[in-house]
Amino acid sequence: MTAASTETRAPHRRPPVSLDDIAAVTPVLAHYTATAIVQGVWQRPGLNARERRVTTLAAFIARGQTIGLPHYFRLALDSGLTPAELSELVTHLAFYAGWPNAFEAVAPLKDLFDERGIGADQLPAATLPLLPVNVALPDAADSRAATTAGIGAVSPGLGHFTATLLHDEVWRRPGLAPHLRNLATLVALIAGGQAQLLPRYLPRALLAGVTREQLSEVLAQLAFYAGWPVTVAALPVLEAFFAQQA
Amino acid sequence: MTAASTETRAPHRRPPVSLDDIAAVTPVLAHYTATAIVQGVWQRPGLNARERRVTTLAAFIARGQTIGLPHYFRLALDSGLTPAELSELVTHLAFYAGWPNAFEAVAPLKDLFDERGIGADQLPAATLPLLPVNVALPDAADSRAATTAGIGAVSPGLGHFTATLLHDEVWRRPGLAPHLRNLATLVALIAGGQAQLLPRYLPRALLAGVTREQLSEVLAQLAFYAGWPVTVAALPVLEAFFAQQA
Amino acid sequence: MTAASTETRAPHRRPPVSLDDIAAVTPVLAHYTATAIVQGVWQRPGLNARERRVTTLAAFIARGQTIGLPHYFRLALDSGLTPAELSELVTHLAFYAGWPNAFEAVAPLKDLFDERGIGADQLPAATLPLLPVNVALPDAADSRAATTAGIGAVSPGLGHFTATLLHDEVWRRPGLAPHLRNLATLVALIAGGQAQLLPRYLPRALLAGVTREQLSEVLAQLAFYAGWPVTVAALPVLEAFFAQQA
Repeated sequence: MTAASTETRAPHRRPPVSLDDIAAVTPVLAHYTATAIVQGVWQRPGLNARERRVTTLAAFIARGQTIGLPHYFRLALDSGLTPAELSELVTHLAFYAGWPNAFEAVAPLKDLFDERGIGADQLPAATLPLLPVNVALPDAADSRAATTAGIGAVSPGLGHFTATLLHDEVWRRPGLAPHLRNLATLVALIAGGQAQLLPRYLPRALLAGVTREQLSEVLAQLAFYAGWPVTVAALPVLEAFFAQQA
Repeated sequence: MTAASTETRAPHRRPPVSLDDIAAVTPVLAHYTATAIVQGVWQRPGLNARERRVTTLAAFIARGQTIGLPHYFRLALDSGLTPAELSELVTHLAFYAGWPNAFEAVAPLKDLFDERGIGADQLPAATLPLLPVNVALPDAADSRAATTAGIGAVSPGLGHFTATLLHDEVWRRPGLAPHLRNLATLVALIAGGQAQLLPRYLPRALLAGVTREQLSEVLAQLAFYAGWPVTVAALPVLEAFFAQQA
Repeated sequence: MTAASTETRAPHRRPPVSLDDIAAVTPVLAHYTATAIVQGVWQRPGLNARERRVTTLAAFIARGQTIGLPHYFRLALDSGLTPAELSELVTHLAFYAGWPNAFEAVAPLKDLFDERGIGADQLPAATLPLLPVNVALPDAADSRAATTAGIGAVSPGLGHFTATLLHDEVWRRPGLAPHLRNLATLVALIAGGQAQLLPRYLPRALLAGVTREQLSEVLAQLAFYAGWPVTVAALPVLEAFFAQQA
């Protein structure tokens, strides 16, 4: 997607939905939001606040859901995620949720950066020294070979971009730790309804330090943010994967 | 998702798309809307008007499609669905389509309630006497046990919320009859592209009075509102399920 | 969906996201947009400009992504797609992405038509002489029989609309060449996360002149616009299909 438009973009003006609005049409949904989410799933051990924010934001962007982005980008900064990490997260999800979904995240994030005076000096440059392959992609030897042999056999073009852009560059950018980058990727798969692809990405995530216990908590949280169906759809895939590991 | 914002929400101002607009870019789509939908699928026997409105609204909310919500919430009230039923429907779909999709439904529904003077006295309270388990969940013994053993084995947190929140509370709320609640759930699965999960939910739906003939009509209607692909994807799942029942 | 509203629709005012906005939150995403997409995938052989525009627009509409529509409808006209072709494309995708996603495309397309003075005389009429069956549906004998026997067995209503509306009419409309119509359909399946349905639609597409090489390029392009997950999910399906053909 390109956007060579010279039109001036109006500031992001999506009206937020307040708890009062929610209570005005469904009192119990406001009640569940407070009790099951804010005082419930958020307080559970197993994921720290930074991981929970990444999980929610990755789910929203993967599903193209913009309504919560202004509020959750704000919460993310307040939970200790840096502007650089949010910037890298949006870029990573351009690849795992599609360019338009990442572009939908630009306006609310820009409004927040403007509001807090966050400028280019706090954001990762377009080109910068990359992480060593074995740090960024502990499964790199395997995965790059699989790319060439597997994806390229069906689509040489897709194999080319996967190898030279995703493997050789995006995954090695230092602005988002491999652990969070892997977490965001797994969330994008589940929230986007493509849980059947998890076995392709889980080995790398486990090597990068995502644990089975964290995945268990990711599912509990995703059920609320992405809905029970896509979350429940991941259960047999994860169960079969871990059974094979055991 | 929480929304503790104190900003004043502007009224919902999503401009509707009129039949004139549609005819101005594709005359045949306006023609099909009138002939195949309004004079076509809506007039078929097999589902009554209330069931057809629930089907459409559940599909829209499951897919995060907001463009038709103002018009269809209005049609739903005019077809005899009560404000209480629409309120419960949105809450139920928060769980089966994700919190953000339910939040997207809040503004158009609030605008309509405001317009018609519908206040809290017509809406279900956050806590209220629940339906007996055997009425709300005719498959309850089975399904709660399956929850504990199945979901909880992969994610104790998800098992916990499924058992204590969905089974013990949401499904037992009296504001939406089990028949319509099950119908909305099945529609959310199909429209959300998760038809492979239908066998997990169909036994309860059949016990609650959803018939095979009604499902047949749901598919005919969903093809228009959610598209042929997700609808056609449900066919082999339903065929295999009913073949096994026979 | 109907929209009998008599309210005046405000012109489409979705603010575009500019490359400057993107660079302000993630410089590297603006960089990748220029290098990997505009100077990258767009320049690859294997698909011409018209085919690349149809691919992108079908992906956006299939996924309900509106942010790029104004820009890409404009690019499509500038790449030689006619207003009539865009009109038919939106109609076709109403069936393969659902009515609401097509309706979301109406406002940006109407704004563009208004801007360029494109009126009803340049658009396909609601009824018009249809293409011969063997031209529009080279697999027609097979597919109509399959419809009756297969779809109709689970849902007579869906079988009825598929046979009488899709097979007998929509697919035979002359405003969009069978080659582009098939391409848009395959893209809608992949981008919509329903790649498992490809074997049902591929035989017709191949007979209509979509080649395996074109599909390979479609995947390379879709990875950016619809994301790696739904694109990668299509690989094993295509591989198995073509292995069986060989």
